[in-house]
Amino acid sequence: MKSLLFFASLLTSIFSFSQSDEAIIKSIYNNSLSKGFSYSWLDHLSNQIGGRLSGSSNAEEAVQWTKEELEKLGLDKVWLQPVMVPKWVRGDAEKAYIESAAGRINVNICALGGSVATPGNGIKARIIEVHGIKELKLLDRDKVEGKIVFFNKPMKESVIHTFSAYGGSAGQRYRGAMEAAKLGAVGVITRSLTHRLDDFPHTGSMTYGDLSVDQQIPSAAISTVGAEKLSEMLKNDKDIQFYFKQNCKQYDDVQSYNVIGEITGNEFPDEFIVVGGHLDSWDLGDGSHDDGAGVVQSMDVLRLLKLSGIKPKRSIRAVMFMNEENGLRGGKKYAEITKQKVENHIFALESDSGGFTPRGFSFDCNSDQFNQILKWKPLFKPYLIHYFEKGGSGADIGPLKNDQIVLAGLRPDSQRYFDYHHAANDTFDAVNKRELELGAATMTSLIYLVDKYGFNPIKTNQNIKD
Amino acid sequence: MKSLLFFASLLTSIFSFSQSDEAIIKSIYNNSLSKGFSYSWLDHLSNQIGGRLSGSSNAEEAVQWTKEELEKLGLDKVWLQPVMVPKWVRGDAEKAYIESAAGRINVNICALGGSVATPGNGIKARIIEVHGIKELKLLDRDKVEGKIVFFNKPMKESVIHTFSAYGGSAGQRYRGAMEAAKLGAVGVITRSLTHRLDDFPHTGSMTYGDLSVDQQIPSAAISTVGAEKLSEMLKNDKDIQFYFKQNCKQYDDVQSYNVIGEITGNEFPDEFIVVGGHLDSWDLGDGSHDDGAGVVQSMDVLRLLKLSGIKPKRSIRAVMFMNEENGLRGGKKYAEITKQKVENHIFALESDSGGFTPRGFSFDCNSDQFNQILKWKPLFKPYLIHYFEKGGSGADIGPLKNDQIVLAGLRPDSQRYFDYHHAANDTFDAVNKRELELGAATMTSLIYLVDKYGFNPIKTNQNIKD
Repeated sequence: MKSLLFFASLLTSIFSFSQSDEAIIKSIYNNSLSKGFSYSWLDHLSNQIGGRLSGSSNAEEAVQWTKEELEKLGLDKVWLQPVMVPKWVRGDAEKAYIESAAGRINVNICALGGSVATPGNGIKARIIEVHGIKELKLLDRDKVEGKIVFFNKPMKESVIHTFSAYGGSAGQRYRGAMEAAKLGAVGVITRSLTHRLDDFPHTGSMTYGDLSVDQQIPSAAISTVGAEKLSEMLKNDKDIQFYFKQNCKQYDDVQSYNVIGEITGNEFPDEFIVVGGHLDSWDLGDGSHDDGAGVVQSMDVLRLLKLSGIKPKRSIRAVMFMNEENGLRGGKKYAEITKQKVENHIFALESDSGGFTPRGFSFDCNSDQFNQILKWKPLFKPYLIHYFEKGGSGADIGPLKNDQIVLAGLRPDSQRYFDYHHAANDTFDAVNKRELELGAATMTSLIYLVDKYGFNPIKTNQNIKD
Repeated sequence: MKSLLFFASLLTSIFSFSQSDEAIIKSIYNNSLSKGFSYSWLDHLSNQIGGRLSGSSNAEEAVQWTKEELEKLGLDKVWLQPVMVPKWVRGDAEKAYIESAAGRINVNICALGGSVATPGNGIKARIIEVHGIKELKLLDRDKVEGKIVFFNKPMKESVIHTFSAYGGSAGQRYRGAMEAAKLGAVGVITRSLTHRLDDFPHTGSMTYGDLSVDQQIPSAAISTVGAEKLSEMLKNDKDIQFYFKQNCKQYDDVQSYNVIGEITGNEFPDEFIVVGGHLDSWDLGDGSHDDGAGVVQSMDVLRLLKLSGIKPKRSIRAVMFMNEENGLRGGKKYAEITKQKVENHIFALESDSGGFTPRGFSFDCNSDQFNQILKWKPLFKPYLIHYFEKGGSGADIGPLKNDQIVLAGLRPDSQRYFDYHHAANDTFDAVNKRELELGAATMTSLIYLVDKYGFNPIKTNQNIKD
């Protein structure tokens, strides 16, 4: 029996795909575009529940709703995986203004996630503008002490992949307060990470590293229009002052959950394939692109597999991770439990780059695995999916990394992503139904192929013998 | 001298592109994304001028403004090319309702471009619903006579290329009134051509063919939400009535212009390359995607060539065509004059598919030319441009077609295009700056390559000798 399976594996490894794969993938796309649930699910998640910051009642409502929706699909298993998550609360709306001899100009800010509050009546201080942490570190302490540091490094416009431009400027948001505090600053204001010039401040995570509580200074993001205004005013008058007030607060960790649905494999039930997104979001918008889209697409992968008549050989799990935004506790917990149970995960795919037209995937894997994957690329051409590159995958599935597993990230068109990222305009109306559904179909098609062919079956057999 | 040029041509035909091409294309993209004018130009065209239906004062304002902007660029020639265009005016806002025993329900409609008016106090009649012209033609005259025909064929959701889905349903809008009139209908209501379910009616051109004036019946588009409502009500009650009123009117042709800017070639000034879009738009929105985007991108092609230090060998013209939407007079006139002057056009590229992320081009050319073009494809990979296929080009450049010329159309991502097409929401805020600029850079890069290498240079030399 074992040798029969071995030869079956050998055959499928020689023929990288079959004609019936074309037909099945076509049916997956048809089903997603004409009978998909992702858009109506996102409507509910965004408009009936809303922003879902870890530890909030919305996040818990989202957990329950997701579980209930999965239970309607007739899966083999649906469960909640407990995980303790941080709870940070924004509190009252922030206030900020620039004060010069000519008067006060209000600007839009929002506290960065994890920041401490200002004193009750706010902070007012002189401003020093820098373009990133490197520039800050070149300054003497007496230039910084007692001031508010204004990080104003924009995202680079000429970079085609906007996530790379984001990566190039995100350090100031994440580590800015920590580094400025070391030089005696009293607060930090960071330019919002978006290419757009508009009035939305964009929040995001930040860290104080090893700083003691009394060394921690409040930090907030300012809208790009506000940043431009502030920078322009500083050119003419170094003595202008900045005022801001926020009363956000970090509470003790609270109980939350990853939500998991599974179709158990009928041939290799102990080999696992994960598809996922994160259920938590920032609190300013309703988290439609980040990452409501990835959640509803992952849920629809299981549904579209069933709708397209596919009976998976391997066990396929949709995992809706909790707490990607400010802790990654869900992703870490899932990997921890997986290790405890010695569950053999062969593939994990995350969608956490927005619900835009899918362009392809990036793969974190070895060359043999990548070469096998490249053979499937022609199957995606009719759907204008062309981007198959080695690269990163997704934050939540990162902790699953080992020498065997293939990790992948859905790569949608990235040009609009940072228009909405972590801001109040990340809302349902910014998502196009067809773009979202094409993403779900693209994910389902890849999951279908991985399930059918597995990875490097000969090596796997050899490994088992070893 | 001639033989030297011959060998230079031969060399460039052997090496399909050089390393410096990579650097130049990179500089084109950098310039477009960081110093592009297309977005601010579109802001003016959309927000300061607005909808530009042929024959309107807005269209004439757009002609003058475009000419003035081109004149600021230091081109070799800028001129207006006179062309007579049709003038159709929508008149007062249309009114429509569904009337049943339970009362009246208002629905959103808009007259189709070229339609006649209803009588002064509107038309009220029973409705017959069909799903396309084929279905209509199967009906006996007594089923249709005296009624309003309701064409309700939706755009097919499962088609990946939305323009194909549009093509599959556009016949009912264009020929619906003509065919319904032949069967004695008194009016036509057509489902708007969009995948979205919303309340925007989408206009567009229609024809009465050879029908005499007294045979012509008014036709209008209904929003998709209105169409769904109407269809649902008809299921329960065939006797409901539909009322609509519109007072649009066709006037005599008026004088208008194509706007043309040229950089004269420094080596082959008598070989012409055209890049263009159409300056007119429908009147409901401000025509940002259709085709303000193509206009400002084409203008920026000339500017980006200069900004990137490229001195074209051939003469490159940006042509902003008038009257694509309801007559194509500008495109026809440009081709007519070209023929009169025996101007040798080797290439024309049109952008008229919206200002979305560019995916590539489709080419209308012979196999030799296409094979040459395919060799340039790797140069576009860093910009995620992957779609190089044979296919259609653009309506305005279509009249230039002959055995020698290569015609091409920019192919942006098409998923959102019909959300806005010919409707009141085709406005500036629906355009993303980076997506628009990436399109301009992609067009400029292709124009640069065509100018540098030409097409089939050896054959061209042979042709000259013949």
